[in-house]
Amino acid sequence: MKGVFYMKIIVSQKELAKGIKSVARGVSAKTSLPILQGIKIVAKSDYLFLTGTNLDLTIETKISCEIIKEGGCVLDAKMLSSIISKLPSDDITISVEDGNAIITNSTSKFELLTENVMEFPEPNIATDGNEIEIETDILLECIRKVFSAISDDNTRPILTGAKVEIENNTLTFVALDGYRLAYKSAIVNYDGTLDAVIPKAVLNEINRILTTSKDIEDTHVTISSNLATFRLENTRISTRLLEGQFIDYKQLLKDTAKTVVTVNVNELKNSIERATILGKNTANNLVKLSFADGKVTIKSNSEIGKSVEELETEKFVGEDTIIAFNSMYLLDGIKGINSNEVKLYIDSSVQPMIMRESEDEKSSIYLVLPVRLNN
Amino acid sequence: MKGVFYMKIIVSQKELAKGIKSVARGVSAKTSLPILQGIKIVAKSDYLFLTGTNLDLTIETKISCEIIKEGGCVLDAKMLSSIISKLPSDDITISVEDGNAIITNSTSKFELLTENVMEFPEPNIATDGNEIEIETDILLECIRKVFSAISDDNTRPILTGAKVEIENNTLTFVALDGYRLAYKSAIVNYDGTLDAVIPKAVLNEINRILTTSKDIEDTHVTISSNLATFRLENTRISTRLLEGQFIDYKQLLKDTAKTVVTVNVNELKNSIERATILGKNTANNLVKLSFADGKVTIKSNSEIGKSVEELETEKFVGEDTIIAFNSMYLLDGIKGINSNEVKLYIDSSVQPMIMRESEDEKSSIYLVLPVRLNN
Repeated sequence: MKGVFYMKIIVSQKELAKGIKSVARGVSAKTSLPILQGIKIVAKSDYLFLTGTNLDLTIETKISCEIIKEGGCVLDAKMLSSIISKLPSDDITISVEDGNAIITNSTSKFELLTENVMEFPEPNIATDGNEIEIETDILLECIRKVFSAISDDNTRPILTGAKVEIENNTLTFVALDGYRLAYKSAIVNYDGTLDAVIPKAVLNEINRILTTSKDIEDTHVTISSNLATFRLENTRISTRLLEGQFIDYKQLLKDTAKTVVTVNVNELKNSIERATILGKNTANNLVKLSFADGKVTIKSNSEIGKSVEELETEKFVGEDTIIAFNSMYLLDGIKGINSNEVKLYIDSSVQPMIMRESEDEKSSIYLVLPVRLNN
Repeated sequence: MKGVFYMKIIVSQKELAKGIKSVARGVSAKTSLPILQGIKIVAKSDYLFLTGTNLDLTIETKISCEIIKEGGCVLDAKMLSSIISKLPSDDITISVEDGNAIITNSTSKFELLTENVMEFPEPNIATDGNEIEIETDILLECIRKVFSAISDDNTRPILTGAKVEIENNTLTFVALDGYRLAYKSAIVNYDGTLDAVIPKAVLNEINRILTTSKDIEDTHVTISSNLATFRLENTRISTRLLEGQFIDYKQLLKDTAKTVVTVNVNELKNSIERATILGKNTANNLVKLSFADGKVTIKSNSEIGKSVEELETEKFVGEDTIIAFNSMYLLDGIKGINSNEVKLYIDSSVQPMIMRESEDEKSSIYLVLPVRLNN
C-alpha cells in the first residue's frame, strides 16, 4: 500500500549527480529488503538529504536546493543515477505525488515509482562520542598503507577490518591477515584515546571520497559504543565497528635481526615483479631471495622456465641467508612504501621478514611470513 | 622431440615490446595446437620477424636488431609479453640453444622452453594479387562506420564480415546483421575492381593498429583468390576471406520517403540514451518515436516508470508518423555519424528508417528495422 506524499524541489543537475554518486556506493546491490536498493531523498531546511545504506554501511550527503515543498521519496539507485547523470547541466525539478516521482527539465520528463520514505530503515549513526579531527593526508596515508593487509576471510571477522588506535597523540593503523601485517602510525592533535576496528569496506569508501574530492582538508570521526561515523564535509559515512579480540601485534615488530639489508625500493619492486612472471605458474607465486656477497639474488622456477635477478644493495649488515615468499604478499608491502630505500630485516628462513621505510623506520612497517622451503 | 637450434640477437626492449604487442593479438587464446599459443621469432637479414596466428588470422611484424647468429624459436606469447614489457628499456640479448631460449640484460636472466620453430604452421599470405593503396583516414572511417553492423552470429558466416568493393574509383564498405545495415563509400585512387568479404576480427585489428600507430599514412591491401593481406608499414595482417553470397543491399538504400526530418545529431543521441534508461527493462530496449507537429517525441515505458523526450527538428517534410525501435540499434548508427545533423527517412511503422548524414548524404548511410508495435 502506497501512501500519498508530496515534495517539490529545484536542484542543479551537477550537484545532484555528484551527491547521488557519493551515496550510491552505500546502496545494497543484493538485498532481501528491496527498499535498500533505493536512495532516500528528503527535502528539508534548504537542503536535499540523500542516503544509501546496506545496514552495515550508511552513506549520507546533503546538497543545496530550492525547496518549494518539503517531503521525501525513495528512488531506485541505479535508475536514478543513470537518469540524472545523462541529463544536461540544467536545473532539475523533482516532485512527488501519490507514489510517483516526476523528474523534469525543459525537454525531458521521467515518471518513476517511489517507495514509501517512512519505510526506509533508520541508519545507525554515532552521535554521542567525542569528535576527533584527523588531517586528510594523514588519514589517507594510514588507510593506504594497511589496506592490502586487511583480510577478506569472513571466518575471522575481526581481521576484516583495520585496528585504529590513538594514544599519546599517536594515531596507529594496523591490519593483518595471517600472511602479512601492515602498520602505520602518525602524530595527531588529540589528547584522548581511541581503540576500534573499522571494516575494510568503510575504509575503502573513505579513501574513494577523499581521493576524488581533493578539497576536503579534515575528516571528523565520532566513535560511540559500537558505531563509528566519519564526516567528510557534507558527506557522512557510518558503520558498525567490528567486535572481538584483535591480535597482540606489538611483540612482532622487532627492530633488530641477524641480517639487515638496505635496497632501492623501485629496483626491488621491478625485480620481484619480473620474477613473479614465472612464479605465477607455481602454487603460491614462489620467489626465493638469497642474501649473499653483499647482493640480493631473486630466483623463480616453473615448468616452462626459470629466472634470476640480481639486485645491488645500499647496505648489507649480518649473515648470508636464503628466504622464500609468496611474491604477491611481498609486492603489496613494497608498493605501499614512500621512501626511496627500504630496510629488510631477516632472522631466518622460517621467521617473518620485516620491511621498514628508510626515512620512516618507526612509523611505517610491513611484516611478511616466509614460505617454508622443502630442502 | 626437440631439435638443436641456435640464434643470437641483440634488440631494443622498446622495439621488441612494441612488436610483441602487435602480433600477440593474432595468437590463439584457446587452441588444440599448443604451438599456436606461441610467437614465432626468426632472426634473418638484419631483422627480427615476429608472427602470431590462429590460422584464420595471422599478424606478422619485423623490427631492426643486431644479429649475431641467424635462427629462430617459438616462445609462449603471454610469458614473453609479460617478461619483455617488464624489463627496463635496455638492450636485450636473446639466444637459443638446444630447446631453451635465454633472455638477458645487465641484471636479469630468463630461461624459457622453446617449441621447434620448424613446426610452426606456415601462415596463408596473399601475395600474387594487385596491391591496392588506401589512405589510413579513409580506411579507418569505413571500418568504424560499418563495424557495429557486422553480425556476430556464426550461423550465417557471410554476415560476420564487411563487404568491401572497389568500382569506378569508389571504395564501398557494407555490413548488415538482419536488424540494421551500415554503408560507407569513399573515392580512392585505384582503377581496378575489388569484391571481398573481410572478417570482423581482421577489421578490428586493423582499426586497433592504425589507431595506436598514428603515423601510418597508407595501408596496402593485396587480395588473391580466397586470401587478403593488409600491410601497415612493418606489420602485415592476413586472413581468409569469407565465402558465400552477400545480400543484394543496393535496392534498400532509397533516398526518398513519406516523411523526411532533419535533427541535431547530439540532441537525438542524448534523448534516445535517456529514453533507453527505462527501455532497458523491456525485452528489446523499446523506444517509440512520434513525428508530429514539426517535432519528434521519444517515449519509453517500463514496469517502474516512463519517460518522454521532446526534440525540436531543423526541417520536417511530409506526414506525421509513429515508429518504434530497439534503441541499441538506433544508437549504434547515431554514434557513427560525423556531421552535426542527420536526415531521417521514414515510410511507415513497418519499413526500415534510413539515416543519412546531412553533409554526406550519398556516402554515409545507416538503415534500421523497426520493432512492430502491437496496437
